Amino acid sequence: MAAQETKARILAAAFQEFADHGVAGARVDRIAKNAACNKNLIYVYFDSKENLFATVLDHHLADAYAGLEFTPQNLPDLARRVFDYAQANPDVYRLLAWATLERTAARPPAREREHDRKLPLIREQQDAGAVAGTVPPELILMAVMALATAWSPAFPFGATANPDTELETAAIREAVGAMVERIVRPER
Amino acid sequence: MAAQETKARILAAAFQEFADHGVAGARVDRIAKNAACNKNLIYVYFDSKENLFATVLDHHLADAYAGLEFTPQNLPDLARRVFDYAQANPDVYRLLAWATLERTAARPPAREREHDRKLPLIREQQDAGAVAGTVPPELILMAVMALATAWSPAFPFGATANPDTELETAAIREAVGAMVERIVRPER
Repeated sequence: MAAQETKARILAAAFQEFADHGVAGARVDRIAKNAACNKNLIYVYFDSKENLFATVLDHHLADAYAGLEFTPQNLPDLARRVFDYAQANPDVYRLLAWATLERTAARPPAREREHDRKLPLIREQQDAGAVAGTVPPELILMAVMALATAWSPAFPFGATANPDTELETAAIREAVGAMVERIVRPER
Repeated sequence: MAAQETKARILAAAFQEFADHGVAGARVDRIAKNAACNKNLIYVYFDSKENLFATVLDHHLADAYAGLEFTPQNLPDLARRVFDYAQANPDVYRLLAWATLERTAARPPAREREHDRKLPLIREQQDAGAVAGTVPPELILMAVMALATAWSPAFPFGATANPDTELETAAIREAVGAMVERIVRPER
């Protein structure tokens, strides 16, 4: 029980440290200090800094997937909900961006499973004529995720490119949904 | 003349070092070694590692803008050309991604100038009825850039999420152009 609590404190401290600094820049000393635990315990529980990162990323992506019902029949709505999630949880997308840049654990198990599950569900909607069929499912999913998270501070073409914007969050959210709607709307 | 050559060697070595490791992870020692110059010279010419990064990023973005004519009247074509550029120059987008994550120089002067120049040009096309008018110019530009670069290895939702893909580059390029075409097509 005490071990579970310590592990939870380590994971919380590691999440913040990795979101701020990435894997190479993270310091296990700081994680131990912020988790109020002995540094050696981190290695006992998680083996290495890299494995701790993979564990943290996998946990947070699994949480994200659990909270974001996948609705292939309504991808604009999915995009709006991913947008909300990314606005509320910028550090989750910073973790994913670090993993991509540092080429570390960019496809943790939770992500790989989800991805492989979603593509045939999009294909089904395309076969049923409910989603435009000319773009492959991988690229439909890519577009939904890239557009829904583009305004996140983890990525370069949204908020970070427009520091003086007067756009309101609700308007950005609606525009993201509208753009996805245009991409997936079936041809008449 | 010798100084110009040395500076050029430093900038080339720094580009690779920053693309691989980001700012915090970059080592001035390695840049000096790969540029075959004295480490102190780097500080003489560029003041600090951070300033060297900002200089490298600004140079490469200025090159990118110079090579990518902005065509607000044909944004699908722009998206296809940015896609080609991102495929050919993955490290430029890695630099930009690091700058965003590390909150360093994400808006160097070349980028700020270009961004501010482009938005009214998109608005003109919207006012003329040539580009869909319901999405603000900032978000049109965001969508073009996010979609055109999403397959770059610098970002998490394209190639890195689909390591076993059978999609061909030409098909991805066409789909990116087609998705942008759908976003910007005027309402009838």
